[in-house]
Amino acid sequence: MDKTFLITNDDGIDAPGINYLISFLKPLGTIVVVAPETGMSGMGHAVTIKTPLRIRQLPSDDGVERYTTNGTPADCVKLGLNQVLKQKPDLIISGINHGSNHSINVLYSGTMAAAIEGAMQNIPSAGFSMYNPNPGIDFSFMEPFVQEICQRLLMHGLPAGTCLNVNFPDTDKPAGVKVCRQSIGYWNEEFDSRLDVHHQPYYWLKGDFIIPQVNDDTDENALQKGYISIVPVTIDLTAHSAIDQARKQFQGL
Amino acid sequence: MDKTFLITNDDGIDAPGINYLISFLKPLGTIVVVAPETGMSGMGHAVTIKTPLRIRQLPSDDGVERYTTNGTPADCVKLGLNQVLKQKPDLIISGINHGSNHSINVLYSGTMAAAIEGAMQNIPSAGFSMYNPNPGIDFSFMEPFVQEICQRLLMHGLPAGTCLNVNFPDTDKPAGVKVCRQSIGYWNEEFDSRLDVHHQPYYWLKGDFIIPQVNDDTDENALQKGYISIVPVTIDLTAHSAIDQARKQFQGL
Repeated sequence: MDKTFLITNDDGIDAPGINYLISFLKPLGTIVVVAPETGMSGMGHAVTIKTPLRIRQLPSDDGVERYTTNGTPADCVKLGLNQVLKQKPDLIISGINHGSNHSINVLYSGTMAAAIEGAMQNIPSAGFSMYNPNPGIDFSFMEPFVQEICQRLLMHGLPAGTCLNVNFPDTDKPAGVKVCRQSIGYWNEEFDSRLDVHHQPYYWLKGDFIIPQVNDDTDENALQKGYISIVPVTIDLTAHSAIDQARKQFQGL
Repeated sequence: MDKTFLITNDDGIDAPGINYLISFLKPLGTIVVVAPETGMSGMGHAVTIKTPLRIRQLPSDDGVERYTTNGTPADCVKLGLNQVLKQKPDLIISGINHGSNHSINVLYSGTMAAAIEGAMQNIPSAGFSMYNPNPGIDFSFMEPFVQEICQRLLMHGLPAGTCLNVNFPDTDKPAGVKVCRQSIGYWNEEFDSRLDVHHQPYYWLKGDFIIPQVNDDTDENALQKGYISIVPVTIDLTAHSAIDQARKQFQGL
C-alpha cells in the first residue's frame, strides 16, 4: 500500500535541506510538506497559542503537496495531522537541518521538536541534521542513508513515545551508522553587547558548545569518528536514576 | 553565607505567580529576578538567536533586583547568569506557573525550560507550577512547601544534569509531597478554524489533554490524589531502553 510521509523542518520551506529530503523520500511514497514560511532555528518545542495560525498551499508541479505556515515546527506537525492530512501519515520526517542537533541541542531544536511531536502521537518519526551548517553543501551523498533509515522505520516502527535524532558527520563519506546515547554538553555562552543608534545596549547570544567528556557510546564520539549517529529519543524526561535519592531528599514533606 | 536565587517565569514579570514566589523566597536569601516582559507560555525551550535582546532594570523598594527582557524564559536564565549576576546563583527557581506543567507538558513549558537551563549549567534548579490556571488564585498556602523544597535543594543539591518539576494540585490543602515519574499523555488537538474579516481562514490551537493510563507512581496520580508532585527531570533524552532494539533495526547500515 502507498505510504504517506509528513515532512517539515525548522529552517523554513525554502531551505535546501528540506528540498533534499523531499527528493530522497519521493521514491518511497506520497509526500505532504507542512513547513514554516521562514527560519525557526532555536524555537525548541515552542507552540503558538496566543495568535492565529495560517496555512497557505504553494503551487506544485511534482506531485508533492506543499503547505507553509506562520507557525513553529511543532505547530506544523499539529496542523499537518489535524488540518492537512486526511489520515495518519506512516512517518513524520523533519529536516534536513543545516547544523547539528546532537547532544543536549535536541532540547533547543525545532527540527527535533517536530519529531518529538510525532513520538507524542505514536507515529514513527525522525529528525535528520547535518553537522555542517553551510547552506551551500551538497547533500546528495545522504540519499541512500536517509532512504534506508526511513525504510527500516516503515518496516519495524519505533517503541511508543520514541523518535530518532539522526545526525550526519562533517564528511560526504560517512563511515556508517552508529546507534548511540546522547552526549552531555553545555553552551559556554557570552553575549555580544553593543550600543544601538540610540546609545541603548543590546545583547546578542553567542557561545561555544563544549562536551567535557566524550564517551565511546555517545553521538559526539560517533560524529567525531565520521559515523552517522542515531539516538533514540524519549518523551519521558524523568531522571529515573535520581528518583530514590529525591525520595530521601524530600521525605516527610 | 548569604544565598542567591535567580528567579524567572514564563507568565511575565507582572504575573501573580512570580510575585508570590519572590515573597516566599525573600526570607531565604538575596533575590535577583530576570523575567520576560510579557507572557511566554508555550515557548518551550526556545532561545532568541536572530534578534537582539534587551534588559531593563525596574525600580524596586524591597531589596529585590528586578530585570525584564524581551527574551524567552531560557534567554532570561542565560542573561541572568551571563550579564546580570556577578557570580553563580545557589538556585534557579522558575514559576510559579499559572497552570500545570506535569506529564509531557514539561516539553512545552517555558517555566521548565528555565529550570532545564539551570540543569545544563549544573545549578540546582526547579520549576513550580499550579494546576489551576486561574490568575486570581491565592497562592499563600504554597509558601511552606516552596520554602522547604528550596531549603532541601540548598542543602543537598541535585545530581548533575537534573532539575525538579514541581506541580501543585488543585487544592489549597495539599496532602503532602510525592516524588514521581512523569506520566505519559498526549494532546487530543483540534484547531478552531474561522474566517477573518477578509474572509481568509485562520486556525487557533485548542485541545484536551489525555493520559490514557494513570500509574500509581506518576505525577498525574499524585496530583489527582491531592499531592504535590516532584519529578526529577533529566537533560538526557536518550531512550536508553530502546537502544538495543535500535541497534538491531539499523545494523549493517
